Amino acid sequence: MKFAAGVEYDGQAFKGWQRQKDDVHTVQLFVERSLSKIANHPVTVHCAGRTDAGVHATGQVVHFETDAVRDERAWTFGGNTNLPDGVSFKWVKPVSDDFHARFSATARRYRYVIANTPLRPALFGKHLSWNRRPLDEKLMHLAAQSMLGERDFSSFRAHGCQSNTPWRFMRHIHVFRQAEYVIIDIKANAFLYHMVRNIAGALMEVGAGLKPVAWTAELMEAKDRSQAGITAPPNGLFLVEVDYPEQFNLPKHAIGPLFLESGLPPC
Amino acid sequence: MKFAAGVEYDGQAFKGWQRQKDDVHTVQLFVERSLSKIANHPVTVHCAGRTDAGVHATGQVVHFETDAVRDERAWTFGGNTNLPDGVSFKWVKPVSDDFHARFSATARRYRYVIANTPLRPALFGKHLSWNRRPLDEKLMHLAAQSMLGERDFSSFRAHGCQSNTPWRFMRHIHVFRQAEYVIIDIKANAFLYHMVRNIAGALMEVGAGLKPVAWTAELMEAKDRSQAGITAPPNGLFLVEVDYPEQFNLPKHAIGPLFLESGLPPC
Repeated sequence: MKFAAGVEYDGQAFKGWQRQKDDVHTVQLFVERSLSKIANHPVTVHCAGRTDAGVHATGQVVHFETDAVRDERAWTFGGNTNLPDGVSFKWVKPVSDDFHARFSATARRYRYVIANTPLRPALFGKHLSWNRRPLDEKLMHLAAQSMLGERDFSSFRAHGCQSNTPWRFMRHIHVFRQAEYVIIDIKANAFLYHMVRNIAGALMEVGAGLKPVAWTAELMEAKDRSQAGITAPPNGLFLVEVDYPEQFNLPKHAIGPLFLESGLPPC
Repeated sequence: MKFAAGVEYDGQAFKGWQRQKDDVHTVQLFVERSLSKIANHPVTVHCAGRTDAGVHATGQVVHFETDAVRDERAWTFGGNTNLPDGVSFKWVKPVSDDFHARFSATARRYRYVIANTPLRPALFGKHLSWNRRPLDEKLMHLAAQSMLGERDFSSFRAHGCQSNTPWRFMRHIHVFRQAEYVIIDIKANAFLYHMVRNIAGALMEVGAGLKPVAWTAELMEAKDRSQAGITAPPNGLFLVEVDYPEQFNLPKHAIGPLFLESGLPPC
């Protein structure tokens, strides 16, 4: 039988998603260990998006197969009991055999959260990104609109990316401010290696007035990673939502992180 | 010369505000050490509200005296360099000699933040409170209104409280929801020992449907701590703002925590 599950985790508590040898503390390792205990046999999970070390998730989706007959509460409440503090199941649900957490996904949505204060934040300082320069979120939003649609994202593709193609379909990039925080909300069919963090790095340059709004359009044209500047740090990044065809009927949740509403505020 | 300073800290990183013997890791210890380094002589700080172990602050205010002549950046940027990750200065500003962080304060404002999800939260799980029962924030708000004005808060006063009187003037209690979080925003001239956490504990009973809305009014009448139920855990509590007379002209900041706006949403 096949199950899908929603997984939330604090990226700072693990060395990335993907299982490594020698019991390195990865999210996948703990999730598989927990489910294996409940199922009473070894369970392997497949995720929608392998996040890097330091990257958080409120909406990671996985699937796994098992012969064990357990009710939903056994997988969720029981599963969470077996997990360390920094990771938890939000839901577990039986799915049809043709479901695949990675290959059935039609879009991924991330939020990049920047504390925008001149002085170092103390609260959640390691869980969010920080930029001490005053950022103009309206300019960042404007600059981001040059990336919409089906485009070649070579300028934002990190060395070591294993994708066959630099083309991705960008559904939306929305930049907005809430109190002292600037949030980049970004959704595409899929992302290249470090793509969100590279885009966040470029948008912060624009927001800080170090580059003009038109710079991002130029970067898209250039198709050259060496021109696009710095990679923003991982700790501001949250995988918040993965879209699947409606037929799979997966649960919807507040995407967060934290108090942030799921909808996009008007710009 | 006298200075006031705004201090932010992660309560989970320290054993409360107040300095203890033997270099226990308290916020006061680190703040005084940092300022003493900048001033080049021992500095003692006085705070607006001594927070318990586990309680956070986005808006703690302190004052200190020094003969050292330093500009604002030396105190803030320099001061933060000397502080561990979980605490930072938000501002430092010269004040008149009649200012006292505790005795000049006219009101304190706290926010108590509850993750209201059936399953254990993984992100910031140790930094917020958690209640797995669905809470009706509108009932909680209604129940809280019986506490407004000048009242005897004996039912919400913890054993060991050193105040001469159980009377406090409650300015507002506003309970609202943002995504999966319920926030209790509470402001009074001052608070008794554990008063906010005891009120939060009672309001959660009402929100979960375990007690009727009228219960809080009955508790106020009873003036009996033993009837009022549990003390909510410290990790959901944030000291967000301290009010002073306008003459001192202290800086205003987003009170948070995090993305929460400073204003109160309509109920």
